[in-house]
Amino acid sequence: MGEFDLIRRFFQRPAAAGVEVGVGDDCAVLVPTPGARWLVSSDMLVEGRHFLSTVDPARLGHKALAVNLSDLAACGATPRGFTLALALPRADEAWLAGFAQGLWALADASGIPLIGGDTTQGPLNLCLTVFGEAPPGQALLRSGARVGDEIWVSGRLGDARLALEVFRGRVVLAGEAFEQVRVAMELPTPRLALGQALRGVATAALDISDGLLGDLGHLLAASGVGATLELAALPRSAVLAVQPPAVQQECLLAGGDDYELVFTAPPGARLPDVGVPLTRIGRIEAAPGLRVVDARGERVDHGLRSFDHFQS
Amino acid sequence: MGEFDLIRRFFQRPAAAGVEVGVGDDCAVLVPTPGARWLVSSDMLVEGRHFLSTVDPARLGHKALAVNLSDLAACGATPRGFTLALALPRADEAWLAGFAQGLWALADASGIPLIGGDTTQGPLNLCLTVFGEAPPGQALLRSGARVGDEIWVSGRLGDARLALEVFRGRVVLAGEAFEQVRVAMELPTPRLALGQALRGVATAALDISDGLLGDLGHLLAASGVGATLELAALPRSAVLAVQPPAVQQECLLAGGDDYELVFTAPPGARLPDVGVPLTRIGRIEAAPGLRVVDARGERVDHGLRSFDHFQS
Repeated sequence: MGEFDLIRRFFQRPAAAGVEVGVGDDCAVLVPTPGARWLVSSDMLVEGRHFLSTVDPARLGHKALAVNLSDLAACGATPRGFTLALALPRADEAWLAGFAQGLWALADASGIPLIGGDTTQGPLNLCLTVFGEAPPGQALLRSGARVGDEIWVSGRLGDARLALEVFRGRVVLAGEAFEQVRVAMELPTPRLALGQALRGVATAALDISDGLLGDLGHLLAASGVGATLELAALPRSAVLAVQPPAVQQECLLAGGDDYELVFTAPPGARLPDVGVPLTRIGRIEAAPGLRVVDARGERVDHGLRSFDHFQS
Repeated sequence: MGEFDLIRRFFQRPAAAGVEVGVGDDCAVLVPTPGARWLVSSDMLVEGRHFLSTVDPARLGHKALAVNLSDLAACGATPRGFTLALALPRADEAWLAGFAQGLWALADASGIPLIGGDTTQGPLNLCLTVFGEAPPGQALLRSGARVGDEIWVSGRLGDARLALEVFRGRVVLAGEAFEQVRVAMELPTPRLALGQALRGVATAALDISDGLLGDLGHLLAASGVGATLELAALPRSAVLAVQPPAVQQECLLAGGDDYELVFTAPPGARLPDVGVPLTRIGRIEAAPGLRVVDARGERVDHGLRSFDHFQS
């Protein structure tokens, strides 16, 4: 199987609505919605850093797209298309069939067509770039949080990190409990409907990929504000809730790979119900920095920091 | 130096015109030109496949962007922005400074802002995605060639491949001659002005990245036509012109890494003069397939095929 057969067999389909030219020319050609802004994000996944070499290829196909869609969700964008650049050690048909199946399933469910990309031989590396649209002035940015805003998070935090700790041998879980956290790690759900519903409601938003502390820190820095987080309020699964407190803290505050949205909104804002639980976890304050407090309001000395690819 | 310092130091600048939000949020936000189409292309460069590990990082920064811009040029697009996803074995400041300098020099010269991307630890891999615009119906595609059209190519072919053969030890060149072909390999010029000037003139176009035979073959297949190429007409440098005929043939027909435009236009079409030499190299015909003929019109049995990442 050559390079172009590979593309045709696994990654080429008739062009979708709004796509004048899809896979197969030098560029894809898309028709923007009149007046809309274009939102663009790119994420690269490397074996051993972002996924384990043993992961089911269908789950990897899902996750590679999901983490990119999560950035569109964080900005409240409507997905319009994505490119996929793949470096593969070899053209392994079974692996490619699985990968493509997981990728297309999420692409179809999210209404986002694959419009182009690249295929090359090399150490396994997946680089996706996603495009979306939002009305002018309505993209959710990190910079809009205001003193007095409440801080909210979608879904639950920490399960993906707990699964990683099982793979690392630091935590023991079996059966259903392991399967549940493994699904959180391998099959994250991008919060696209929530992001779009938060346009005009949230003052700032981002998605949690490197851990709540670090990611929320970016939002605070961009907005020029500080915050207090309530550790007890952080939403967690029943599986995580029975782990030792230190494990819970690490998974909740610095876990990463959550792909939930954290956003700010004024008290009393009418939050959308799109079937995703939303939990109030803290408040924006004028004093710079991010304080974590326990149920009695006392500072928690967690000693944690966020994931950094060159300092971890 | 951590991941976010690295981004700030080397890859973050104030947002450019037309870019509402640049590097630093979950997505970049761009303002499309009303009525224009969006063109998107993505290319991934892997060490040892697309560049040698010994390459000057500034030249690599140039080339990584150049090969992507070449796809916009091939479609006649005006550049609007690009993302850069980088996997690096380590955060080497001297390497990054050189890479960024070469990247920014070409970005500035081409008027294309860096709007976002990703940085991760891993085997060296550069994945860029470029965005451009063209008026509706004016993007140059591979599919528009018509029987009777002439086939044209910009610049000169084969020097990049000749340089590769020197590195491989199959050809010996020294001094100025080697430097000239090495520049062709390491510092290709994307033909952006030519591509834009060919809107409404060329019937089909693409850029030569995998070799003239293979790339032109894609154009013929997309257009449902055949062609005859005149080997003697293929433009070559004085350095390549004194190589043995078999080396010349291989470099000209199957060289790759040329990043020149090959395009078709009706006889008598008024071709643009943007300071890039254009050479007529053949003609589109109804009979399927791609025939190469010598100066007497006799078929050349070249036995060459185009580069394929999974069959080379």
